[in-house]
Amino acid sequence: MATVALDLLGGDKAPEVVADAIARLRSGTVDPADPAIDLIVVGPAAVARALLTERGVDLSTLRIVDAGRGASMTGSPLSTLRDHEDVTVTVAVGLVNARIADAFVSVGHTGAAVAAAVLGLGRVGGMSRPALAVVVPSLAGPVVLVDAGAAPDATPDVLRQFALAGWAYSMSLGVPSPRVGLLTIGSEEGKGDRLRKSTHDLLLETLPVVGVDYVGPVEGHDIAVGSRADVIVTDGFTGNVLLKGLEGAVQWMAHQMGAAYGDADPARTVVRKTATGDFAGGMLLGVNGVTVIGHGAGTADEICACVRLADRAARLGLVTATQRALASVASP
Amino acid sequence: MATVALDLLGGDKAPEVVADAIARLRSGTVDPADPAIDLIVVGPAAVARALLTERGVDLSTLRIVDAGRGASMTGSPLSTLRDHEDVTVTVAVGLVNARIADAFVSVGHTGAAVAAAVLGLGRVGGMSRPALAVVVPSLAGPVVLVDAGAAPDATPDVLRQFALAGWAYSMSLGVPSPRVGLLTIGSEEGKGDRLRKSTHDLLLETLPVVGVDYVGPVEGHDIAVGSRADVIVTDGFTGNVLLKGLEGAVQWMAHQMGAAYGDADPARTVVRKTATGDFAGGMLLGVNGVTVIGHGAGTADEICACVRLADRAARLGLVTATQRALASVASP
Repeated sequence: MATVALDLLGGDKAPEVVADAIARLRSGTVDPADPAIDLIVVGPAAVARALLTERGVDLSTLRIVDAGRGASMTGSPLSTLRDHEDVTVTVAVGLVNARIADAFVSVGHTGAAVAAAVLGLGRVGGMSRPALAVVVPSLAGPVVLVDAGAAPDATPDVLRQFALAGWAYSMSLGVPSPRVGLLTIGSEEGKGDRLRKSTHDLLLETLPVVGVDYVGPVEGHDIAVGSRADVIVTDGFTGNVLLKGLEGAVQWMAHQMGAAYGDADPARTVVRKTATGDFAGGMLLGVNGVTVIGHGAGTADEICACVRLADRAARLGLVTATQRALASVASP
Repeated sequence: MATVALDLLGGDKAPEVVADAIARLRSGTVDPADPAIDLIVVGPAAVARALLTERGVDLSTLRIVDAGRGASMTGSPLSTLRDHEDVTVTVAVGLVNARIADAFVSVGHTGAAVAAAVLGLGRVGGMSRPALAVVVPSLAGPVVLVDAGAAPDATPDVLRQFALAGWAYSMSLGVPSPRVGLLTIGSEEGKGDRLRKSTHDLLLETLPVVGVDYVGPVEGHDIAVGSRADVIVTDGFTGNVLLKGLEGAVQWMAHQMGAAYGDADPARTVVRKTATGDFAGGMLLGVNGVTVIGHGAGTADEICACVRLADRAARLGLVTATQRALASVASP
């Protein structure tokens, strides 16, 4: 198993909700494999010890690294990062950089976690900016959506970087030859906005040459149907809107279904299972270290899912795979 | 009731599926108000008469206007429009322009229907391009999403036009003072891509002055949750991706729910009800005539829903409302 550094102060209900997650991971009641994940809790040491002891956690089963300040605790998270060294996300990323940890997980402020990772770990060669990739459960199996919000404005070259990084991520999740699609409108070639038209031409020219199976344009429904592509590439604006749209649709459907069947419980179970699978966390692709960022409003179960995702990506060699994929295409 | 001109040759399974829809509308078995809608069927007259007679439709309960050619029947729909006068969408739009019909419905090629409407009816003053608006059922009630795909590339000024047209549409659907939100990522001001940042400033400066309740940034989940805005404004690329994403999510959820409850039927009923409500058709805003465009793959029930939507918008004075809203903001 890998060593995961977990931000105790990230999340709307931190540190309590993170301590709840740690208690579940140590107990192994949800997943018997959880206790084998090596955990480093990054936060105020006294607070960590008190909260974990309260929850019956044997403190000898994990490590605690002291860091007193959460990124979002005062004013702007980015200026907190700049002005202070004892910020949990900075300290946790430092552990990954020093190879004390294999991966970093935070459910705090996304911008702060991204900034800490980029500053502390550096970008993978060939990536001009990192991307957030989310594994969406679809009818045909998991689909990687990249970018889900890290880079709202993108160029064709940036989208190509995202395509390569998403392809490497999908492979490291066990898909042998991932099919990469470009999210657009209308599945015929030549449809879409200006950005998509230029990007399609670039991907078509350059991806097959390096062995990436580029399947061309895909549409919004392909993310939930899943049969056309294993990786769906888009800019962070569109990806974030789509992802949150899916989350809203799941809520709406659960409500309709509860009414239609006269029993809300099975619908709630589906929603909870969806939220606590791989879907719970965004994988930051293109930095030299495994970085998982969860929802600020994430529950303890969602935080557990983020830790499992980080552990798996670290064990499966995500960073090396990303580095290799990006190196395969020479920069223009 | 209004007079609706219906394209017999639009739709993947036309003309049969359109004839099925007409039979249902005339019978009134689905909605007793249907037979009061005055229908003009636009297509090859002999084909129309044969198909409708086969389905037991009393031909005295509607009018048939002869037009021999579907826009998608040969080669490029747009060149068919340019090269021929007997195309169903052109003839149907001509009936609206001549005030013989109050509204036009097609479930054929979207680009062809939009082009026919723009050419035949003209744009509303102040609209530089039309927008497709879809009524999405949300937890809090119907939400108008505009643009759902007519204009993939947009500017702040175009998004302001869409905001005004969407506001007028929402009012004509019965919302007394529609709240207008700008679709972006992160609900704080200053988040989003470059287009959204410029647009937010423009909307904030100009919409409240003309009495439009601009609520600022909203996110992807707000379309299905619906409590923050009655009208959600975006470019046609993002809107189309989001709309199709929602459709995919509904399919995915229906499948999960069928499995969770051990009975697929109620889930299928929810999906069918959703697809055959106002959601079935896009309203083309910004042309001088009511124009509803449905899915090419639309079923007979979805086509019926498009006709009902067109009838209602015509009766409620959508075009006048749009003209007034656009006239309220002087062009820059």
